[in-house]
Amino acid sequence: MAETKEFKRSPAHFTDRITADARDGWPAEPGRYRLVVSRACPWANRAVISRRLLGLEDAVSLAITDPIQDEKSWRFTLDPGGRDPVLGIAYLGEAYAAREPDYDGGISVPAVVDAPSGRLVTNDFLQITLDLATEWGPRYRAGAPDLYPEDRRDEIDAVNDAVFRDINNGVYRAGFAHTQERYDDAYTRLFARLDELEARLSTRRYLVGDTITEADIRLFATLVRFDAVYHGHFKCNRTKLTEMPALWAYSRDLFQTPGFGDTIDFDHIKRHYYQVHTGINPTAIVPKGPDLSVWRTPHHREDLGGRPFGDGTPPGPPPEAERVPALPGAA
Amino acid sequence: MAETKEFKRSPAHFTDRITADARDGWPAEPGRYRLVVSRACPWANRAVISRRLLGLEDAVSLAITDPIQDEKSWRFTLDPGGRDPVLGIAYLGEAYAAREPDYDGGISVPAVVDAPSGRLVTNDFLQITLDLATEWGPRYRAGAPDLYPEDRRDEIDAVNDAVFRDINNGVYRAGFAHTQERYDDAYTRLFARLDELEARLSTRRYLVGDTITEADIRLFATLVRFDAVYHGHFKCNRTKLTEMPALWAYSRDLFQTPGFGDTIDFDHIKRHYYQVHTGINPTAIVPKGPDLSVWRTPHHREDLGGRPFGDGTPPGPPPEAERVPALPGAA
Repeated sequence: MAETKEFKRSPAHFTDRITADARDGWPAEPGRYRLVVSRACPWANRAVISRRLLGLEDAVSLAITDPIQDEKSWRFTLDPGGRDPVLGIAYLGEAYAAREPDYDGGISVPAVVDAPSGRLVTNDFLQITLDLATEWGPRYRAGAPDLYPEDRRDEIDAVNDAVFRDINNGVYRAGFAHTQERYDDAYTRLFARLDELEARLSTRRYLVGDTITEADIRLFATLVRFDAVYHGHFKCNRTKLTEMPALWAYSRDLFQTPGFGDTIDFDHIKRHYYQVHTGINPTAIVPKGPDLSVWRTPHHREDLGGRPFGDGTPPGPPPEAERVPALPGAA
Repeated sequence: MAETKEFKRSPAHFTDRITADARDGWPAEPGRYRLVVSRACPWANRAVISRRLLGLEDAVSLAITDPIQDEKSWRFTLDPGGRDPVLGIAYLGEAYAAREPDYDGGISVPAVVDAPSGRLVTNDFLQITLDLATEWGPRYRAGAPDLYPEDRRDEIDAVNDAVFRDINNGVYRAGFAHTQERYDDAYTRLFARLDELEARLSTRRYLVGDTITEADIRLFATLVRFDAVYHGHFKCNRTKLTEMPALWAYSRDLFQTPGFGDTIDFDHIKRHYYQVHTGINPTAIVPKGPDLSVWRTPHHREDLGGRPFGDGTPPGPPPEAERVPALPGAA
């Protein structure tokens, strides 16, 4: 067999959980942990959205890295003096080293760091949001939604598995493919799954039940980046998101829901992908398009019914220090 | 000043003209010349369209190169034995060398070769179509249009100049830019010009007068490649062609006119750009999208009036040997 390289996403190395019962030694204790993210990263975006929807901003603080990693990976160059003001470190890798001095694997976001010790707790992007959604009972804001309802977990997990394989990770499989065959396969699976979801979302407002759940957060984090980066940079170009009517309206509906669009920084997103992946974009030039003002256009998804926050309410505006730039108009 | 590289299109080196009066020693003599093109190349595409519209297929024969150049440039690997059956050469560069043994410049298409001597006559892509349109009087088919009418030449030239600078060559300036500033400038000029043409073509069927002219051929050759390559590969991504209603309908109208769409081979186009330009697409992977079946959808441009061929008629179908593959459906 010819050798064919395939993009493989590394499993998280640090999988401790932060829970109400502190089973791994990490109690869900407010003020203790720092959630380190890049605004560019879809996996980190999930955690930022969950934290906003659940009103955990005061319980779990947020550190935002430069969208452009250097050879030592994610760094805090956006902060005064180039250091995270709480952890006092210049690179996220320092928290990884504090946890495991001999660690020589990848440095990824989202990462949760124990602020008192400066040690990484977890970089398990698949588990972090589930624990945010279920383990912080007394700390949720009044009106917080149940993002992972017990009676829907099987359905949510099933949707998430398919969405992860074919969409969340599928766009990376397409973009980082080293052979035409691998790319073609990823592209085919991606659009087949999107077509399936296009049909599913034509008659229902959200993916599971009639409220926003973990499943919507995960799909949204990829769709919001679709036309800005995946369509061109990753060659996922059968159609733009804007050409898939139900998915496009669904994405705008979520974008315009407090806790979603207010976490999106398209400048960070575009600069990260186009400037970091010089293996597929050697010039590191960042496209000026597409026109992003369309994200604010009416979506009419209310006509499908649904109760976005179930018996709860939308979150208030984000903390002042966490505001993203206003949505750019036409480029 | 910081050094900034800009993409510069080389002027044609061989600028002899083939004319009715043989002023450069090359008479417009049927059966003598071979037009060498790549189906991928927009500059060559112009000449292929003109030849079809004018019915010069029998007067000027056609050689089609492999869309993928190798280190010796354009080659005849699509022909039996890898040699052009008329010229007997494997590489177009051999005709350049026959003309000028010490020539060490670029090898470009379109090129017109004198078949008896095997010598290149011209690679002057800006002049070739004008001479095809005006110097072959007795050889035009019955019903051939006047593609460069005398009383419209100033207007056609003015449109062509702007379209060349900002669109035909503008997409290359964007795609091959080595600095963000150069790219931004090319992108801005490109879409400003497209917006201007979008307005112009909202109320008139063709660019100049009410018939198809040289100006339409030149614009079409770029627009037909826009979504398939320039949008993603060259980062011309404010909007797809399909998102600019008048330009999109105009492009479909021409595509569906005999002599235009029947010269388009999207497979050659996509493979050429994505596999040859490894400086901007190092993986050489060819995107499967976009869906090209939309080129056959109704355009309704007849409602604007216009007389596509003036007092003439459309050409018949292309010669059997020059048929392009059927338009692919959704990828």
